[in-house]
Amino acid sequence: MDYELALHESPQPRLDPSERPTRLLHVMLRVRNLARSMDFYIGALGLRMLRRQDYPSGRFTLVFLGYGEEAAHTVLELTHNWDQDEPYELGTGYGHIALAVNDVHAACGELAEAGVKITRPPGPMKHSDTLMAFIEDPDGYRIELIGCS
Amino acid sequence: MDYELALHESPQPRLDPSERPTRLLHVMLRVRNLARSMDFYIGALGLRMLRRQDYPSGRFTLVFLGYGEEAAHTVLELTHNWDQDEPYELGTGYGHIALAVNDVHAACGELAEAGVKITRPPGPMKHSDTLMAFIEDPDGYRIELIGCS
Repeated sequence: MDYELALHESPQPRLDPSERPTRLLHVMLRVRNLARSMDFYIGALGLRMLRRQDYPSGRFTLVFLGYGEEAAHTVLELTHNWDQDEPYELGTGYGHIALAVNDVHAACGELAEAGVKITRPPGPMKHSDTLMAFIEDPDGYRIELIGCS
Repeated sequence: MDYELALHESPQPRLDPSERPTRLLHVMLRVRNLARSMDFYIGALGLRMLRRQDYPSGRFTLVFLGYGEEAAHTVLELTHNWDQDEPYELGTGYGHIALAVNDVHAACGELAEAGVKITRPPGPMKHSDTLMAFIEDPDGYRIELIGCS
């Protein structure tokens, strides 16, 4: 199979339609300090707490945060392992989540005042007029803000 | 601030409501072989190709895949750096994406036949009757399948 050719072909779904996944439910990230992460995602980014499950026997907690209910929206799952002492390794594969904001400049201004690290200041995307910026969560995960007004 | 107390309090949003992000647009993962990943995500998992952008000057390609249109659904963005030779480091922080399936057993059966690696066979979640499984994408990213019938 020619690689360049394959890149420009869109493969056909092979799975029986009734067996195919139907939607993206959540994205899971491990966080080292749940209180700090909730302050960031709820307090600074305005996500809502949807569900929390503590597993004392496994010594971990799961928190589901979203901009809407899980039945209709893809949400963020934070896993907090109570005994995690070391920072998680961020690796080079996972990139980021992207969030829509009305005004990238205004949002970054407020976030910077709230102490959030802006790692790529607001500006246009390459080859596009769309405004974007990158910020960092307390564990160092990157978050893209994209102007969608 | 008492940590245990803070864990059980939900912080109040601080950002001006008009500046708050409004929704989760996408999740970005870097992949080493775009044709192989598209075959997996489109061919095996049934996502649809929504948008593709080639950046010859930066030597990378972005592909947006989803179970619905970007205007209303959170989608998956794959970044393919043309000159990436080494496998990406997966790290320990990023967890997985989760997909809804009608029947976890049937989906895993078909995926296994299609050569997809099932890393956690179908079975109930801890403390719940919900069925789930884990599979692995071509770069080793974990994907949770959750029965939502």
